[in-house]
Amino acid sequence: MKLLEDRIRKDGIIREGNVLKVDSFINHQMDIALFREMAREWKRLFAGKPINKVLTIEASGIGIAAVVASELNVPVVFAKKSMSINLDYDNYETQIQSFTHKKIYNVIVSKKFLTPEDHLLIVDDFLANGCALMGLLELAAEAGATVEGIGIGIEKGFQAGGELVRSKGVQLESLAIIESMDSTTGEIVFRPQPHQS
Amino acid sequence: MKLLEDRIRKDGIIREGNVLKVDSFINHQMDIALFREMAREWKRLFAGKPINKVLTIEASGIGIAAVVASELNVPVVFAKKSMSINLDYDNYETQIQSFTHKKIYNVIVSKKFLTPEDHLLIVDDFLANGCALMGLLELAAEAGATVEGIGIGIEKGFQAGGELVRSKGVQLESLAIIESMDSTTGEIVFRPQPHQS
Repeated sequence: MKLLEDRIRKDGIIREGNVLKVDSFINHQMDIALFREMAREWKRLFAGKPINKVLTIEASGIGIAAVVASELNVPVVFAKKSMSINLDYDNYETQIQSFTHKKIYNVIVSKKFLTPEDHLLIVDDFLANGCALMGLLELAAEAGATVEGIGIGIEKGFQAGGELVRSKGVQLESLAIIESMDSTTGEIVFRPQPHQS
Repeated sequence: MKLLEDRIRKDGIIREGNVLKVDSFINHQMDIALFREMAREWKRLFAGKPINKVLTIEASGIGIAAVVASELNVPVVFAKKSMSINLDYDNYETQIQSFTHKKIYNVIVSKKFLTPEDHLLIVDDFLANGCALMGLLELAAEAGATVEGIGIGIEKGFQAGGELVRSKGVQLESLAIIESMDSTTGEIVFRPQPHQS
């Protein structure tokens, strides 16, 4: 999606070690007008799919998911990291590793909110190694829900996650796929995606 | 707001110890259509205020904040719990106590995203003892930002947070204020708010 690629070029900050900071518009400050355009693009890309729920994971996925769900007129369920004493113990549960935070999280979704009747659009801001996404796919599979598609903001195309998920045959639409980036020159190369706007 | 009060009566679950579970529509599964109506009510209640940003705290505040920000056409900034290695160390920081999770969190906002130019609407799903909200007010004060108002989904009117915040002279609009609830009968008494819809 050209709008997102242009914004990453303009406001993204590349750090050594293939770190891309987009905290001024995606995952700390959130540009909701941009999210709305992203939501409309996913609506177009997943048109005709019987999506009845958006699934994401806390925390930075929630904002994008809420705007997408508003566009699709469906509810959101967000998977929670770690156990809250306010939750029922009747949950689907899996573990995911966060490289950013160097931790392993328990990730849970209440069995009440993921069922075999659900046709999910999974949404998240980033896809790199795919750990979070594989965790969400596992929760959906445990619940017997159908994953109609996956919408990702920014995919690091040089890491394994995208390939891993595409090999499962799920329609994955990352609105910007970074092939390479250079922290010294600031140059970013995006993968061409002619079917996107 | 009658719509929210009715929904709490219908789908809220009262547990012993004054615990109210609203995870089927507010803070695990999120009813975005309801959030949109809440956002419109806040837009009406804070009409005329020069709000240029919504401030909230991860995680369950983010969904409501995103929908409110979409309605007001402004960005969201969410305060983060605990330090991520992807963040700059140039942050406003405070501590808040979570009674639900029995922990003390560091809460941070990048100095880039809260400034003296900001006129904030602070949004969160719940207000009980007010710890999270006092933390957000402190971050806003550190930044020299103006708090134009506070929008809360559900306030536990029998806990101290609401009184504490109102005594500071900030316009606080909780869309449902629970005066009392009874886990044996399921009865909930809401505080009358004739100025709300």
